[in-house]
Amino acid sequence: MELTGLSSQQLAARKAELESALDDIRSQKLSLDLTRGKPASDQLDLSNALDGILEGFYLLQDGTDVRNYGGILGIPEARALGAAILDLAPEQVLAGGNSSLTLMYQYMDFMTGFASPCWRDEAVQAGSRLKFLCPVPGYDRHFTICEQLGIEMIPVPLTGRGPDMDLVESLVAADPLVKGIWCVPKYSNPSGETYDDETVKRIAALPKRAGAGFRVMWDNAYVVHHLSDTPDQLASIMELASREGTEDNIVLLASTSKITFAGAGVAFLGASVTNLKAFEKYLSASVIGYDKVNQLRHVRFLRDMDTLSRHMEKHRALIQPKFDKVEAVLESKLGGKGIATWTRPAGGYFVSLDTMAGIASEVVRMAAGVGVKLTPAGATWPYGVDPEDRNIRIAPTFPSLAQLEKALLVFVVCVELCAVNKLLEG
Amino acid sequence: MELTGLSSQQLAARKAELESALDDIRSQKLSLDLTRGKPASDQLDLSNALDGILEGFYLLQDGTDVRNYGGILGIPEARALGAAILDLAPEQVLAGGNSSLTLMYQYMDFMTGFASPCWRDEAVQAGSRLKFLCPVPGYDRHFTICEQLGIEMIPVPLTGRGPDMDLVESLVAADPLVKGIWCVPKYSNPSGETYDDETVKRIAALPKRAGAGFRVMWDNAYVVHHLSDTPDQLASIMELASREGTEDNIVLLASTSKITFAGAGVAFLGASVTNLKAFEKYLSASVIGYDKVNQLRHVRFLRDMDTLSRHMEKHRALIQPKFDKVEAVLESKLGGKGIATWTRPAGGYFVSLDTMAGIASEVVRMAAGVGVKLTPAGATWPYGVDPEDRNIRIAPTFPSLAQLEKALLVFVVCVELCAVNKLLEG
Repeated sequence: MELTGLSSQQLAARKAELESALDDIRSQKLSLDLTRGKPASDQLDLSNALDGILEGFYLLQDGTDVRNYGGILGIPEARALGAAILDLAPEQVLAGGNSSLTLMYQYMDFMTGFASPCWRDEAVQAGSRLKFLCPVPGYDRHFTICEQLGIEMIPVPLTGRGPDMDLVESLVAADPLVKGIWCVPKYSNPSGETYDDETVKRIAALPKRAGAGFRVMWDNAYVVHHLSDTPDQLASIMELASREGTEDNIVLLASTSKITFAGAGVAFLGASVTNLKAFEKYLSASVIGYDKVNQLRHVRFLRDMDTLSRHMEKHRALIQPKFDKVEAVLESKLGGKGIATWTRPAGGYFVSLDTMAGIASEVVRMAAGVGVKLTPAGATWPYGVDPEDRNIRIAPTFPSLAQLEKALLVFVVCVELCAVNKLLEG
Repeated sequence: MELTGLSSQQLAARKAELESALDDIRSQKLSLDLTRGKPASDQLDLSNALDGILEGFYLLQDGTDVRNYGGILGIPEARALGAAILDLAPEQVLAGGNSSLTLMYQYMDFMTGFASPCWRDEAVQAGSRLKFLCPVPGYDRHFTICEQLGIEMIPVPLTGRGPDMDLVESLVAADPLVKGIWCVPKYSNPSGETYDDETVKRIAALPKRAGAGFRVMWDNAYVVHHLSDTPDQLASIMELASREGTEDNIVLLASTSKITFAGAGVAFLGASVTNLKAFEKYLSASVIGYDKVNQLRHVRFLRDMDTLSRHMEKHRALIQPKFDKVEAVLESKLGGKGIATWTRPAGGYFVSLDTMAGIASEVVRMAAGVGVKLTPAGATWPYGVDPEDRNIRIAPTFPSLAQLEKALLVFVVCVELCAVNKLLEG
């Protein structure tokens, strides 16, 4: 039954039960971790064939030896693979190094100080700071990029179908120093939502309300990471942008980090040919070329979208039970109590849970105190500050199923105990 | 005999001979390339064992799974290898991605805008531009970094034992906005010289004349790339700096690009622990971790300095004949004519040739016209401008010995013909 319906006496009794449970847990001296969206080692094993896959063959169809210097945009075969993943033409794709985060940072740095005209000059002229829209809850590393580059972040709520577009459009129209928006459009980190067609269409049209320097940072990190037989469908933003004449304002990102080896794969940046050409010029001062040997390994291993999809099914088989476990534990222990809501994602790497307002950081602190590490509350918000202090991101993939269950059983005790304490206070 | 001793008639006769030779060459429709310092494919073959070397073992001694996210400073085993190469302690080394150029750019960007205090703020306060000392002839990509970051370059002549230190010291003392110096201290690109002990000592002491923000960018790109049984000895700059109390001002760089696969290896950045910690913080916004799988491949393959040195001997066996060929052709065709001087390097990747003043770019143009591509004249100078227009960099490693000889025979005709034309003019 709903905890809000309990009397103070009943709450006090429940508090005692929960504290006793927590004492039991403390005595077990656990060391569990639900923080980062990392693949587990059985998932990594799926790609062990990468090492050795080249069998001494290093030449591309165009005669390029991948073991030697050269080429910032990546090997044609890898660009074609990235284009298939991002639903673009190969000439719109840069196949990069081991990290899409690095490409995002470099692209933002390029726009901030080196593109023509660059954002920094506009800000100086306007005597104000650059701003970026940040749908929340969101990915902390997007926010860190903005912080480091001195860009002010404006949080915009997600609705379950993408960002609140009325708000987004009014913010963009009101201030020319709003230079862009971060989007994780499919199986969003951490809410799991996929932007609907109407939202994608309105985002593609946004640059017409803003200046030419506006950029949609379309981080399609979970584009092939399904947890359902009927995957979410995401509209093609580049196709919609080409109808609006805004192709030069769209920047797409993806990587193989959660497909093959995490942090040892290939990242992709998609953009119009004009946009890519300007970015390539910027990169030429810092990049001698990406690791083409590893690009070729990935092309040989992932081959095409059919092969890649079959590979992703193997990932799903390994992680689906973990997501099912999260749902089962949360539902059985918190369901119907009126103290938390959470997502049931059809893809991606996270479950997003909202506690009662004002207790998320206390839940995280309490869990840490008994040996269960959670992503810091607030991490999903710009500057690490969740104004309502309620969102917690759960990353279930890395621990074993048994460890996951143990950690979740601790987590739900902490969520309920903090809620009881809050209700007793109030 | 010296061409300067010839009469106008003799010169005209020689001109006719050379032009006829050039016509012959033109009719061969050559397509040869002496531009970039790239290893040849037989050199790359030496490292083919890298692919597949892991044999399914991805765990480090400390339990880290290299296939997963994490760790900006690199795996301990790779840091130790980098420390052996750079003559540092492992905790002073970051093992990075596939490019030391990227690390250099990132470090310079860090100092320009993010270190505390940062160069940019100092420049704004002083109302002037940042400046960097650039020993010439030097590496064009160092200069490109400065250009992109808005840093003014001041060329300083190399003497054969390193930069002209009297000039360097006076420039540093005269202007606090001189923020650093680029150095390729061993088998310098392209002059081949190695800085002598006295020079290294004076460079290590430089930061005492400059401010705390001064940086020595010590690009030890050719540290293990010998072409002699008695390799040049380079003093340890970090050891000398520690005596001077200037460790925080020294940044060392190296990579395996010309040891294993070019652009698909591991780069290293060496610095004091304090310096490295600040740089790591800057990197954490853009780097999720470097490719640890590839780092482990390199550790398994190169192992230690003994194994690495034996590997480098195999490179030497392949490229020594090419350097010998350069010397033989230049000596037989240009020797004693008083129109060119060139280096006989004991290591590295280049031969540096000085023509008579004012004709280097014409030589490059002429050679290109008959199918032999040379590094653009001036590329070895800041802003691509060699004020005397005489330096040409020859990169002999990439072509086959036969192609190299053919290209050189064209090159010497161009050098002599341009010299004859110059003498006839004057």
